[in-house]
Amino acid sequence: MYFASDNTSGMPERIVNAIIQANSGYASGYGTDPSMAQLSTRIREVFEAPEAEVFLVTTGSAANALALSSYCPPWGAVYCHALAHIEVDECGAPEFYTGGAKLTHVAGADGKMDPQALADTLARAGRGVVHHVQPGIVSLTNLTECGTRYSAAEISALAEIARSHGLPVHLDGARFANALVAEGCSPADMSWRAGVDVLSLGGTKNGLMGVEAVVMFDPARAWEFQLRRKRGGHLWSKHRYLSAQMAAWLEDGFWLDLARDANAMAARLEQGLRAYPQVDVSFPRGGNMLFARWPRAWHARLHEDGAKYYLWPDHETLAGPEETPLGARLVCSWNTSPAQVDGFLERMGA
Amino acid sequence: MYFASDNTSGMPERIVNAIIQANSGYASGYGTDPSMAQLSTRIREVFEAPEAEVFLVTTGSAANALALSSYCPPWGAVYCHALAHIEVDECGAPEFYTGGAKLTHVAGADGKMDPQALADTLARAGRGVVHHVQPGIVSLTNLTECGTRYSAAEISALAEIARSHGLPVHLDGARFANALVAEGCSPADMSWRAGVDVLSLGGTKNGLMGVEAVVMFDPARAWEFQLRRKRGGHLWSKHRYLSAQMAAWLEDGFWLDLARDANAMAARLEQGLRAYPQVDVSFPRGGNMLFARWPRAWHARLHEDGAKYYLWPDHETLAGPEETPLGARLVCSWNTSPAQVDGFLERMGA
Amino acid sequence: MYFASDNTSGMPERIVNAIIQANSGYASGYGTDPSMAQLSTRIREVFEAPEAEVFLVTTGSAANALALSSYCPPWGAVYCHALAHIEVDECGAPEFYTGGAKLTHVAGADGKMDPQALADTLARAGRGVVHHVQPGIVSLTNLTECGTRYSAAEISALAEIARSHGLPVHLDGARFANALVAEGCSPADMSWRAGVDVLSLGGTKNGLMGVEAVVMFDPARAWEFQLRRKRGGHLWSKHRYLSAQMAAWLEDGFWLDLARDANAMAARLEQGLRAYPQVDVSFPRGGNMLFARWPRAWHARLHEDGAKYYLWPDHETLAGPEETPLGARLVCSWNTSPAQVDGFLERMGA
Amino acid sequence: MYFASDNTSGMPERIVNAIIQANSGYASGYGTDPSMAQLSTRIREVFEAPEAEVFLVTTGSAANALALSSYCPPWGAVYCHALAHIEVDECGAPEFYTGGAKLTHVAGADGKMDPQALADTLARAGRGVVHHVQPGIVSLTNLTECGTRYSAAEISALAEIARSHGLPVHLDGARFANALVAEGCSPADMSWRAGVDVLSLGGTKNGLMGVEAVVMFDPARAWEFQLRRKRGGHLWSKHRYLSAQMAAWLEDGFWLDLARDANAMAARLEQGLRAYPQVDVSFPRGGNMLFARWPRAWHARLHEDGAKYYLWPDHETLAGPEETPLGARLVCSWNTSPAQVDGFLERMGA
Repeated sequence: MYFASDNTSGMPERIVNAIIQANSGYASGYGTDPSMAQLSTRIREVFEAPEAEVFLVTTGSAANALALSSYCPPWGAVYCHALAHIEVDECGAPEFYTGGAKLTHVAGADGKMDPQALADTLARAGRGVVHHVQPGIVSLTNLTECGTRYSAAEISALAEIARSHGLPVHLDGARFANALVAEGCSPADMSWRAGVDVLSLGGTKNGLMGVEAVVMFDPARAWEFQLRRKRGGHLWSKHRYLSAQMAAWLEDGFWLDLARDANAMAARLEQGLRAYPQVDVSFPRGGNMLFARWPRAWHARLHEDGAKYYLWPDHETLAGPEETPLGARLVCSWNTSPAQVDGFLERMGA
Repeated sequence: MYFASDNTSGMPERIVNAIIQANSGYASGYGTDPSMAQLSTRIREVFEAPEAEVFLVTTGSAANALALSSYCPPWGAVYCHALAHIEVDECGAPEFYTGGAKLTHVAGADGKMDPQALADTLARAGRGVVHHVQPGIVSLTNLTECGTRYSAAEISALAEIARSHGLPVHLDGARFANALVAEGCSPADMSWRAGVDVLSLGGTKNGLMGVEAVVMFDPARAWEFQLRRKRGGHLWSKHRYLSAQMAAWLEDGFWLDLARDANAMAARLEQGLRAYPQVDVSFPRGGNMLFARWPRAWHARLHEDGAKYYLWPDHETLAGPEETPLGARLVCSWNTSPAQVDGFLERMGA
Repeated sequence: MYFASDNTSGMPERIVNAIIQANSGYASGYGTDPSMAQLSTRIREVFEAPEAEVFLVTTGSAANALALSSYCPPWGAVYCHALAHIEVDECGAPEFYTGGAKLTHVAGADGKMDPQALADTLARAGRGVVHHVQPGIVSLTNLTECGTRYSAAEISALAEIARSHGLPVHLDGARFANALVAEGCSPADMSWRAGVDVLSLGGTKNGLMGVEAVVMFDPARAWEFQLRRKRGGHLWSKHRYLSAQMAAWLEDGFWLDLARDANAMAARLEQGLRAYPQVDVSFPRGGNMLFARWPRAWHARLHEDGAKYYLWPDHETLAGPEETPLGARLVCSWNTSPAQVDGFLERMGA
Repeated sequence: MYFASDNTSGMPERIVNAIIQANSGYASGYGTDPSMAQLSTRIREVFEAPEAEVFLVTTGSAANALALSSYCPPWGAVYCHALAHIEVDECGAPEFYTGGAKLTHVAGADGKMDPQALADTLARAGRGVVHHVQPGIVSLTNLTECGTRYSAAEISALAEIARSHGLPVHLDGARFANALVAEGCSPADMSWRAGVDVLSLGGTKNGLMGVEAVVMFDPARAWEFQLRRKRGGHLWSKHRYLSAQMAAWLEDGFWLDLARDANAMAARLEQGLRAYPQVDVSFPRGGNMLFARWPRAWHARLHEDGAKYYLWPDHETLAGPEETPLGARLVCSWNTSPAQVDGFLERMGA
């Protein structure tokens, strides 16, 4: 009953085997070994983006912060949703890496930026007025932090607004694969074709040990990115272990299979939750994550039984009147099993 | 014939097995799983330092820069040797993490800081004068970047000078194990007993995939360190893979065995080199790394044969008169074999 | 008809004379001349704060950003109103000086922080959770950016909430004197007695050339402040010109007289505006600044006649239907004359 | 007997009058009033640089740090002499403003960078190697911190080396006027014609209250500079007082007259010093500043008589054997009088 996060799961056997294979012999360091070149080629194929540059780091915060800092100056505004991971859960990594850019909220329901809100915000941003922070970059997340999903068309619409103000677009894709298989479109459709300039392509939450790719569709900032990565302490010497994992993950669409499994379990969980009239599902489920509210007493029971998940919003606690509803965030991963889901659902309403 | 760096080697089987074992089931993230607590306890035992706080990151640059930034303010001077890794090889990571501290050179032969030079530098540092950067921290490296070694007594002498000026001491221990076994003293003797406040304990160059521990002997800055680590994007979600590796590495003195093997191969290499009158060994060998100069023509031959090592200083190239001497940096690792060493020596003078 | 800002006025003759007097002879630099020591003593008397440390800079942004950075770490949150000058009008100076702190909005009507909103925000701030930026400092402004005023009791109430969470309080007092004379309380009552730890005491908007004092009621961070000031390029060599101005300004309550004059003109202006049924005064006037809305056609007429003031919000323009209301910000200064006010009012409704 | 610094002198009457004149009436803020546009035009004429952009700040540290940060990235090296003001006397302002660039020493006698040393340093800088800080900018000072002077040809030679490595050149001209009149060349010859891209044109040490111009001969970074200036808290609201001072200073070559006076007094001082066999003048005098060594007992006598100057190097003290030589830095300003010089010389050897 582990629904705390998709990063509490381990690695599938194929990934472990890739690590074991990568372990033989010597390899030159820092991404200069052949495996990284091969991986870059593979990602360019997968994304139909022959000019793209690809760099690996080991955390999502590093991927996001390095990507943002390569496109947004210290005096820039990073436009994001108030619930965005970069705003809430990275202890200020974007501010640190950019040298003090200002994360500026753009409103929208269900964790998704509203196009009109973005347009209004940019129209009033004060570009060219020296007293104000200048428009820097638009950062979206897919899946969002509410577990909802942008369609490729929705990303496109937001990116077009950004573009009309001369701004680049970043996509935090910590759960990009989950969004992709749910949407049923191609990686290119969900990224550069929709106007995304730089993508944080998450592997860690979808089966890797700790590997995230930054995919720069416009390679102009690639060298700057490399210097920033090194300077941030994020250039691995034994880099082969990162490229080997991601190569195995991309092989034969394995990454999409893992995401499909996670999404399917979330769908099963949602179905079960909706069967209880006492349960209120909070947002339209976009992939492998869902939010719901149910009586506090049920939470207590689940916690006693060892169920792992976060209360939501995260400042909430179990303390309170038994019958009052209390929110939960539930995340399924590639190795969540039907038995786990069913067990959770059973005990919940027992 | 891979002598480029100890980080071009992979992981010994014990470490791979530790990863495989860590892979089963779910674990809470970000170092909150039991394996990190156990590792902290173990490191406290190994270092006889029951109050120490331990944090893991995956690169030496991250370990160093985070450690320095936790002790040195933005307006501080970091006193180091001109050849120090933090000065030369981290693309300014210490400046980035500290918010702009000034790396200030302290002279000394063979990559080692000279006590008198440190005393003189500190005496003239201008503490209390607002126009000058203020003394911040002393940073030593053992093994040094010249492959030489500080004895525990030498570290002690430098730390005492630092202490007399109210400064903390950082030790970059990317090759701490190699220094330790060569010196034949205890981890405590080479660290806190010698006056070290914070240690970057390197695992990557000695058999791990990418794991470095920051050991804070004075835990007062531990929480600040954790925030800096998160903010730097260096807090792993699937943290168990890091703690599991380092736990296996410390078990039964395995880390010291690995270092002993590397040092022994370097000794064998040195012996072979010294047998050639055309070879000039540059510095007293402290552990698993050595520097030597020999005729340029020999370098060309070795390169043709596929030998891997860096020319030194690193701005040198093979181009030049055949008979002129040219420097090399040669590093042995835990899996360097006698056959590799002997093969290198043979071809070199062939 | 100059109502654009109180900083478009010059200096009263007494201040000019102080500069002329300060100009004779030699003086040691960087605030080490006797005039700064005398000024510090005087400010301690005026504020009944014998332990306070005082430092001069020449812009409000510098005063605010340096003050905030001396109390809030890079991973801290600066709690402020969404309209605060530090958030809107300093091009990210607080982020720059703090090394990337996050300005976090606390709601409230009329530009004033609501105590309940502050309490709620702090209760949910996630102190001790490494993923979140940590609570850093509460920053208030008096007069606010809406021209409204906190009473000493209101500041006290907010400061008490801050204190209960262990947070220091900063007061941006660019118009401190205007607030003080309107409130009719003592400098101490409006600052340290109300729980303020550090005050930006503005002189520039109230008759000085460019002089702001940072008053640190708790002197513990004084040395850090001095280093930050120097490092920010804000330590004047010919410092005597700053201390001389502020000394003359404080003499015989001259600073309060200037503020009283400005407030009186704003009162006259308000009275005149309220006489027009077409004019809607937006916020309760706290001192020398007011906001009002009136027909767009009237704005056009005033602009043609050379009246100087900002439309508000500042992204508004004159373009639009004649009869629609449009906002203005009107600021009076120490040398605004009754004739100017009356002339403005006349032409407005002509 | 005030030889401590040229910034311990006040302002000539013409400058005071310019302030008084600027004080009448209202003026729009932040450099948008007509006086700044006029000054920019004037500086373009004086420098024969019709494309140049000009910005005012109030300290030399601000001018230097803002200029450097507009041309050198955070991962860049700023090449300067070990004695440069930016390295020694700005408490790390360049590191702060650039976001952590590395000040890298280039050797040379008498405070002047040696062309061969610069060429060698750049040849070994490791451009394109991600582990190393990348070449960023070359920063020269004229007059140097040793009081010596670069000729226009010498600046040209250094700038050509910089240019051949693709690097821009900054000139710290805190004493630019003193260098100019001593060299007898035009402002253009000593700046852009010699390859300087950005100049810190110092007014404060040559008669202004606190005004420095940053002259950008290539205007491409002008907007970035303005944002950095604002963000650094260096954009004055009552900006007219700065532009008025500098305009009066440039009028009829007044700035050059002031510098000539200062240089003449330094020449008189030098002549007097050389007349004493016990005095050893340390460096070739370039303008208004000189360094010399004489018996410690003489220093004690001068100090008793109230003479003001710095011992040099600045960690030296009066304590020590009477007959041993001790260094001094002596600076003349626009209002140093022959009587002061002669008085100093007399008492010295009395």
